[in-house]
Amino acid sequence: MSRTIKLAVIPGDGIGPEVVAEAVKVLGAVTARDDVTIDTSMFHLGAARFLETGDVLTDADLASIQEHDAILLGAVGGVPGDPRLKNANIERGLLLGLRFALDHYVNLRPCTIYPGVTSPLAAPGVVDFVVVREGTEGPYVGNGGAIRRGTAQEVANEVSVNTAYGVERVVRYAFEVAQSRERKRLTLVHKTNVLVFAGSLWQRIVNEVAVEYPRVAVDYLHVDAATIFFVTNPSRFDVLVTDNLFGDILTDLAAAISGGIGLAASGNINPTGHFPSMFEPVHGSAPDIAGQQLADPTAAILSVALLLDHLGLPDAAARVNVAVADDLRRRSTLERRSTAEVGDAIVTLLTD
Amino acid sequence: MSRTIKLAVIPGDGIGPEVVAEAVKVLGAVTARDDVTIDTSMFHLGAARFLETGDVLTDADLASIQEHDAILLGAVGGVPGDPRLKNANIERGLLLGLRFALDHYVNLRPCTIYPGVTSPLAAPGVVDFVVVREGTEGPYVGNGGAIRRGTAQEVANEVSVNTAYGVERVVRYAFEVAQSRERKRLTLVHKTNVLVFAGSLWQRIVNEVAVEYPRVAVDYLHVDAATIFFVTNPSRFDVLVTDNLFGDILTDLAAAISGGIGLAASGNINPTGHFPSMFEPVHGSAPDIAGQQLADPTAAILSVALLLDHLGLPDAAARVNVAVADDLRRRSTLERRSTAEVGDAIVTLLTD
Ligand SMILES: CC(C)[C@H](C(=O)O)[C@@H](O)C(=O)O
Ligand SMILES: CC(C)[C@H](C(=O)O)[C@@H](O)C(=O)O
Repeated sequence: MSRTIKLAVIPGDGIGPEVVAEAVKVLGAVTARDDVTIDTSMFHLGAARFLETGDVLTDADLASIQEHDAILLGAVGGVPGDPRLKNANIERGLLLGLRFALDHYVNLRPCTIYPGVTSPLAAPGVVDFVVVREGTEGPYVGNGGAIRRGTAQEVANEVSVNTAYGVERVVRYAFEVAQSRERKRLTLVHKTNVLVFAGSLWQRIVNEVAVEYPRVAVDYLHVDAATIFFVTNPSRFDVLVTDNLFGDILTDLAAAISGGIGLAASGNINPTGHFPSMFEPVHGSAPDIAGQQLADPTAAILSVALLLDHLGLPDAAARVNVAVADDLRRRSTLERRSTAEVGDAIVTLLTD
Repeated sequence: MSRTIKLAVIPGDGIGPEVVAEAVKVLGAVTARDDVTIDTSMFHLGAARFLETGDVLTDADLASIQEHDAILLGAVGGVPGDPRLKNANIERGLLLGLRFALDHYVNLRPCTIYPGVTSPLAAPGVVDFVVVREGTEGPYVGNGGAIRRGTAQEVANEVSVNTAYGVERVVRYAFEVAQSRERKRLTLVHKTNVLVFAGSLWQRIVNEVAVEYPRVAVDYLHVDAATIFFVTNPSRFDVLVTDNLFGDILTDLAAAISGGIGLAASGNINPTGHFPSMFEPVHGSAPDIAGQQLADPTAAILSVALLLDHLGLPDAAARVNVAVADDLRRRSTLERRSTAEVGDAIVTLLTD
């Protein structure tokens, strides 16, 4: 039975277009044998678009993106310090704009140290965990304000908003992920000893949902202690569930220990399917190396695996993961390759 | 000229009393030759006290602590999961209670990889930086609340409060520290791209104060990116200044990369001298190994060096640091020593 996937592609800025080109190439190659057609529409969004038109994300953009089954995003953000972008904050306007508008309440970020990849840790052990970061609440809601701005009497507040509704749905998702994995272990990360209100909500919901998942072993770590284990014993983790800000911090750390941000994939997921989910490498637009075929497209390609999984094509997802793992295993023996050469090599591994 | 230092000692719970005993021993030994007398008063505070009396920190405790020149604290906190401590939160009540009551707006946490100490990083390089963490504002103010608690409609908020007054005084302190160091480099860590109100206050104050310190080179990192550098290139850091919560997270990570929480010292400082400052190891009370002479007193002893520095005895502080460094250098060749043996060895190095 043939199937057409309508994919909104946002190449973005800097190295975004280069890595997305490889990701789309891999997506086409891996789905060819499944009788799946990828119907891509390109969206010109990001710093370049803002500089041309003054728009970050219009209602028309949003409406048109929503007609797709999924979104693949490269990276957005202009050259740091560009005065024309001073108050624009493209990353926030666009990434958070899409995550909130499309209710991407699960921000899924796997962390694996692939064989052949060098970790900055001396003895990382076998590392293969997933961070389930909440995507639509916490300190990210934009609920802040300041009075007496610019004066010596300024007071600037930021409000972290946490709802039982919002926490429960992401916690449930995390339990499902944990239950589907071999080790079936879920770690809640928060700072319940200081953020007592948000913390007790998170802890209560985890305790309540845990009753429905008796096979999942649950534990808790304060976020500060969690960072210690990330560098001293990352093997201890299987699935982590945490709030938007803690998840932001922990997943960059996770990317660092597993060989760098060039390998870290992510999914911004609305599991209900009411909105298209968005898949993107965790890295930024790296304008300093843009347009030179220097960027590593692996994170974008691994994001394609997450996309395929989400769209109900787990076999194709697994094939991408295996091809990437194969490529990474041989990488240390190879000369430095261009962005396209890495994509081509993975396509070859897929189609051999 | 002889001098008497009135020291409030809070041994606390778990391993606290053991490590504090060594710290006091070292303090006595290092100041003996300076004609300084240490007049210690013991304060019975922590989980044990709470279980006996129901009090965490009374007004009388506070008033009496305030009559001292400085505070040395071991560690507080009962056995995790002890039902009698369920809602007590000793750490918060006592540590944060003292930090806020005594206006400890500078939380100073040095991070050094000492020669001879094994870092979990494969190639850490030379690491010697200081985190200046704000201690009296941010998400730690306890300004949160919840409605419809325990229901599916619960909303739990946490407010991060940041004032120009509070940010400026800690930023100034950080510039002073940076200016006094060889590399004269200060990194502001925040999340200005998301926490735009608090972030722009921090960024503005740093920009303004920087004008007065033309010899200090300033840069900025988002907290997520900072964690990456902590594991990939910690040598890049000299002085960091950051908010209370980011500082909490980053300093545990810093402790981890520099050989563990057993070596991490901290000062909770009120630089005005209007209140006694408090020095404590970053580690917790570790009830599982308490009373067995298994704890490493090094972090408590290094906290004594910070205390001496704060009290205007930098030579004595330097002697403690040198003795600890000597001890750490030989440590890998030695059998495992008891808590007291480590303290004794450092005293011997000091008095030789
Ligand atoms: C760019 C920024 C708004 C974003 C975030 O904080 O979520 C990024 O760091 C990420 O993790 O995707
Ligand atoms: C125990 C806790 C309240 C404390 C904090 O969060 O500040 C601790 O983690 C620390 O860093 O001293």
